[in-house]
Amino acid sequence: MNESLKFIYNLQKEISTFSGISALLGWDQMTYMPKLGINKRSQQSSLISCIIHEKIISDTFWNHIRKLNKQNNFDKLQIKDQIVVKRLYKDVRKSRKIPSKFIEKLSKTTTIAYNAWENARDKNDYKIFSPHLEKIIHLKKEYCDIIDIPGNLYNSLIDDYEEGMTVDLLKMEFNRLEIKLTELLKKIKKCEKFKNQKDLDITINSKKQQEICNFIVSKLGLPNNRSRIDISTHPFTTSIGNNDVRITTNIKQNNPFFSLFSTIHESGHALYELGILKGEYLDTVISDSPSLGMHESQSRFWENMIGKNISFWKFFYPYLMKKEFKINKLGNFDLLYDYINQVKPSLIRVEADELTYCLHVILRFNLELDLISDKINVSELPQLWNENINNLLGVKPNTYKEGVLQDMHWSGGNFGYFPTYAIGSIYAAQIYDKLQKVNPALNDEIELGNFSNITNWLNNNIFNKGRIMTADEIIKNICGETLNSDIYINYLKNKYFKIYECN
Amino acid sequence: MNESLKFIYNLQKEISTFSGISALLGWDQMTYMPKLGINKRSQQSSLISCIIHEKIISDTFWNHIRKLNKQNNFDKLQIKDQIVVKRLYKDVRKSRKIPSKFIEKLSKTTTIAYNAWENARDKNDYKIFSPHLEKIIHLKKEYCDIIDIPGNLYNSLIDDYEEGMTVDLLKMEFNRLEIKLTELLKKIKKCEKFKNQKDLDITINSKKQQEICNFIVSKLGLPNNRSRIDISTHPFTTSIGNNDVRITTNIKQNNPFFSLFSTIHESGHALYELGILKGEYLDTVISDSPSLGMHESQSRFWENMIGKNISFWKFFYPYLMKKEFKINKLGNFDLLYDYINQVKPSLIRVEADELTYCLHVILRFNLELDLISDKINVSELPQLWNENINNLLGVKPNTYKEGVLQDMHWSGGNFGYFPTYAIGSIYAAQIYDKLQKVNPALNDEIELGNFSNITNWLNNNIFNKGRIMTADEIIKNICGETLNSDIYINYLKNKYFKIYECN
Repeated sequence: MNESLKFIYNLQKEISTFSGISALLGWDQMTYMPKLGINKRSQQSSLISCIIHEKIISDTFWNHIRKLNKQNNFDKLQIKDQIVVKRLYKDVRKSRKIPSKFIEKLSKTTTIAYNAWENARDKNDYKIFSPHLEKIIHLKKEYCDIIDIPGNLYNSLIDDYEEGMTVDLLKMEFNRLEIKLTELLKKIKKCEKFKNQKDLDITINSKKQQEICNFIVSKLGLPNNRSRIDISTHPFTTSIGNNDVRITTNIKQNNPFFSLFSTIHESGHALYELGILKGEYLDTVISDSPSLGMHESQSRFWENMIGKNISFWKFFYPYLMKKEFKINKLGNFDLLYDYINQVKPSLIRVEADELTYCLHVILRFNLELDLISDKINVSELPQLWNENINNLLGVKPNTYKEGVLQDMHWSGGNFGYFPTYAIGSIYAAQIYDKLQKVNPALNDEIELGNFSNITNWLNNNIFNKGRIMTADEIIKNICGETLNSDIYINYLKNKYFKIYECN
Repeated sequence: MNESLKFIYNLQKEISTFSGISALLGWDQMTYMPKLGINKRSQQSSLISCIIHEKIISDTFWNHIRKLNKQNNFDKLQIKDQIVVKRLYKDVRKSRKIPSKFIEKLSKTTTIAYNAWENARDKNDYKIFSPHLEKIIHLKKEYCDIIDIPGNLYNSLIDDYEEGMTVDLLKMEFNRLEIKLTELLKKIKKCEKFKNQKDLDITINSKKQQEICNFIVSKLGLPNNRSRIDISTHPFTTSIGNNDVRITTNIKQNNPFFSLFSTIHESGHALYELGILKGEYLDTVISDSPSLGMHESQSRFWENMIGKNISFWKFFYPYLMKKEFKINKLGNFDLLYDYINQVKPSLIRVEADELTYCLHVILRFNLELDLISDKINVSELPQLWNENINNLLGVKPNTYKEGVLQDMHWSGGNFGYFPTYAIGSIYAAQIYDKLQKVNPALNDEIELGNFSNITNWLNNNIFNKGRIMTADEIIKNICGETLNSDIYINYLKNKYFKIYECN
């Protein structure tokens, strides 16, 4: 027993060490690596991934886990060890189901598909990508057969990102969400303020955008001895060690608040990573988030519920003015607040406003479901995409890059990933709702730029649960109920009806 | 045979991949890692080091090498394979001599010693460090017994950095060098120009220093798709991949040309790394430099023979003027050229001028020799240091940090390392001498900021030899003779007598 415990803890620590190395290789690739370093970097990353995978599925590891998981032995374990063993048993059993050859095949297929996707975008030629997408869908269906979670095939895909979540549950929530969001959007579109809304002509130079990002990162409480911020094409967050969490942003001249909101978004992820359950669980499978939806709830909570909150701008507006950046045609607070909360149906998910964002996600979820269940085929996809986005948002892509080829997820085989963006948004609203109830002074604190009570609360109610509970259990524990899009709808309705002076 | 060849090439490639990962972990630690990331980083670095070591000394690897090295088999190999096998046989046999337990013990001892060294420096208390130094010397002597190269014990230490070099040879060269440098210094000190020399009051702000470094890096021919420059406390060069070589510099306000010369120095290392023999030797032990002395010859060649050359400053001075940085009390080219070539006996090796630099090295070499052969003991070291530096240069340290504790090498157990700095300087002069002979237009080209002929020549005569030849063989191949400090002395004499108007 003791020998087995020692083995499983040592191996988890080793895997955690390798994972940090893998994260550094990825971070460097996206930030500072000289362009031609890519070939060697691919070799380095794939070597470390292979090592991690081999360690996870090794028979010795599995035998120790099974031994500890036997009822007789399990009952004698300490609570902490029981939690770790139970989690490991589930994780490793799943990993061991997948043949190494399958992983290799999927990896090769997606590497080629990613290049084809880039190429297809550049040339605006869907046919360059479609045969690869067909192969990937074929492999993903094979994967579903391997994992074999009951119910809809697609359940086996969601489970990788959102453990325990099912198609039935998501369909129910997403259908309601789609109907309600569409209603809201229709109403807002009829408002005078919507019809008259105009873009502001705002320019903030790179250096000032960077200063703003640094200011925000430090205000939100990311300690500079445990974290850092850099520039990359696509913003992301990564954990290189328990005391080394890094975020990136991108400076866009024509979208001067992109860096601000992406920084707030990634700071949400980073605060979670930095605060996540450690102590006796450090370097175990428990010191992690239970799901991508839960992780996304943190980023979207900070980005939208806090960062696009009127109280936040009451704190932030004077700072911006002090920084004396160049804002043309901008006289007052209200215009700016309205501008950053503009509802503006558009083509690109990552540029969508808060209100329409989830419609982009639902579109993808429905298409994925139909692809996996053979209701539609790959060749129909672009047309269906265009029809659906037009139905949902009244916009039409002119190119594949603006439509079906805009996201890289499918080229990487990440089917089942998209729903977590909407799940995160819904969770975020539930968390925000609860926070307002437990702390009536919330908005006053935000207005003073004081976020420590928020972070402490998140820490006590989410971060320090690690993976001891599932995402839904954590939310139920906090809010008394699991995923519920009604609260999200109410939040959006209250906020945007006020902004657009509708009723 | 084929199976063995396949095995040894695959393993070398894997080791090379791990080495690149190890280099990235080190680079990041010195440049961007958040401070508290250090604990996890140590675990990550030591994990990769262990893996590399285990792979090198594995029995399977050794058996394949031995099989290929057997005369019967060896004779049937292609030339390239013979070169690789021969080199591997020598390297791996040496590595396998060292028990893993010894490596572990040395590693633990030096980790603790490094902290003690830092602590001793801060507190100016040599006794904090001395017991650790004693342990390290004890271990290094044990190491000499293990490696057991004939002649002086210390030969086994030098061999790690400068294969084939011996105490006898170094003593001869260094003694001559010491006598001649001391003579030169004495003469210069008597010159009027020396007696009247004054510091220039020059300030270059950080941003401009960085611009200057970027300019230099690109002028010297470091391609930005294969290399980069960052900031770290101590400048260094590292290879993360065959197309990913990185240098660092440090910006010092009170030493405005430090960043320039350290950048030129590291660029010399980087050009070597980028140009080093690859092709069919990529990811083999041959694609490396034969010795540290050879590597240092490249950095010191660029830093001193080129970077402090009057022709270089004829090219560089107008650029500086154009940059309009703040140079007070500076009116003309001659003053600036004299200033950057000032001979100024001082306490700190890394800040030493070109003329006195090797005296710092020789001082350490002599002390190391006496420590390893028990002629002196650790407690006498500070006093001997102070006496010797005073005898050599007429300066007296006020603190241990300015004296015996200034370099980190001993805390890391790197005995035998220092000589390579002087070897590099001597080689550099020999290379420069040859270059002037083969290219009479050398100085004209430098004056135009055109360095491509130099790099091409280095490439053809040094870089593309990799480790096929030893350092001394490469120099003999170029110059017709091995290490010869007379050429270095002549170079210094010609240059500095001219600057100081002595005779």
